[in-house]
Amino acid sequence: MTPASLDKLCIHTITTKPWAIETSAAKFAAAGVKGITVWRDTLAGRDIAKTGQLLRDHGLSIVSLCRGGFFPATTDADRTKALDDNRKAIAEAHALGAPLIVLVCGAVPGQPLTESRKQITDGIAALLPECQAAGVKLAIEPLHPMYADSRSAVNTLGQANDMVEQLKSPYVGVAADVYHLWWDPALEAEIARCGRLNALFAYHVCDWRTPTTDLLLDRGLMGEGCIPLKQIRSWVEATGFNGFNEVEVFSTRLWATDQDEYLAKIVQAYKDHV
Amino acid sequence: MTPASLDKLCIHTITTKPWAIETSAAKFAAAGVKGITVWRDTLAGRDIAKTGQLLRDHGLSIVSLCRGGFFPATTDADRTKALDDNRKAIAEAHALGAPLIVLVCGAVPGQPLTESRKQITDGIAALLPECQAAGVKLAIEPLHPMYADSRSAVNTLGQANDMVEQLKSPYVGVAADVYHLWWDPALEAEIARCGRLNALFAYHVCDWRTPTTDLLLDRGLMGEGCIPLKQIRSWVEATGFNGFNEVEVFSTRLWATDQDEYLAKIVQAYKDHV
Repeated sequence: MTPASLDKLCIHTITTKPWAIETSAAKFAAAGVKGITVWRDTLAGRDIAKTGQLLRDHGLSIVSLCRGGFFPATTDADRTKALDDNRKAIAEAHALGAPLIVLVCGAVPGQPLTESRKQITDGIAALLPECQAAGVKLAIEPLHPMYADSRSAVNTLGQANDMVEQLKSPYVGVAADVYHLWWDPALEAEIARCGRLNALFAYHVCDWRTPTTDLLLDRGLMGEGCIPLKQIRSWVEATGFNGFNEVEVFSTRLWATDQDEYLAKIVQAYKDHV
Repeated sequence: MTPASLDKLCIHTITTKPWAIETSAAKFAAAGVKGITVWRDTLAGRDIAKTGQLLRDHGLSIVSLCRGGFFPATTDADRTKALDDNRKAIAEAHALGAPLIVLVCGAVPGQPLTESRKQITDGIAALLPECQAAGVKLAIEPLHPMYADSRSAVNTLGQANDMVEQLKSPYVGVAADVYHLWWDPALEAEIARCGRLNALFAYHVCDWRTPTTDLLLDRGLMGEGCIPLKQIRSWVEATGFNGFNEVEVFSTRLWATDQDEYLAKIVQAYKDHV
């Protein structure tokens, strides 16, 4: 059960947000980290293909690109704009050499959640030809219900699995993040179902702090909170999942600390708690 | 559909937290409000039976007492202490003349949610003789999943309905609060199920603001957010529910305003949005 090695450790660039992607790549590699998930903002002003080569030259697997999505909108024009941005993300992932894009699906305050979910499904369906052409998959990330107002109308793994079943494409699966899903009484069953659908594309870890002082930027490092990480990973691995355990932590508190020391803590927390 | 009158308007004392209960009672009655839900802290230092009489003398129905619960704990001693406090709440409700106690069921960070749920069910079961003797019912309030760490291991209406079915007592039902439940894709079906169980004991309203800046104390007044209040009330009333619409808003922002003006806004928001 315990990850004896770091072979499956991936870190998101946003976890060490103060660092440029070149710094993250060099530091991650030196620490023995094997995978990196790239947030799109870190690619600004870079040659994306060359950046992908730089990451591979460091021995890092490029696990995914974060993020696409935000499909719902109140006008056709805005929904078209959202699709265009997702097409841009697919092109970026292709250039970078990332096999997967994580989708934060979107929601519009006041628009019925059922309508937003329909727009999300339609949006993903519209992208599938480009995904196939680029060899890039999409992972629906169900977000915690506290983000149902403006970030995602997909709030449980069950809903994400329903969408996967509806879309019926080998290019559409799920990114399961413990922060969003840990509370769900159906979690074990829905992870198993996701596995049966061959749709468990990514697994993200962090922790839930008590008290949590900000809805977005107060995640904990693994071990700082109450999420049963080892139990959830055992459910994930029972499906046959053999991918990376991706550390994705948004934390103004941790970003304010020395990032070299923080990286050492991440590696230790991974060994102790994931 | 629209509440043409204020006949079903109840306000929680915590909504106008700066006021003492005697002030709330006089002001609510003068504004045409017909019901009051009493938070226990407002009874400190009072003769509870006399306070109940004062509320009734103002023409107010005492809808419920907030709150009991917090059953889970890591030691037998602490679970016994929790039961004792709930017995005290039952006695207070009886003295006040409140027919119902709302339960925030509790959770312990790091204790498995399944264990906390078992302790909650056991705790409620242990109280049923006192409930019957006092003529006081208990309402399980499912809390938003963002409170699963430390406030409640019951996070969906489906889970609350499951507990009601398991406990099989006319003294155990549910308090449905839109703030906690609005995002749930199963909400309409679970409200209907709760009705079939004769277990829909209370209905609470407020709104969800975008952005929400605090997990606990940044609720919106009805109309300030994205919750489809009229739709949810239509589901509630389709069960035959004929109780009060209870306004329960925790908001440091609104508590800092003039409470007389705020009460007028509550009444208007109730007419416009509930």
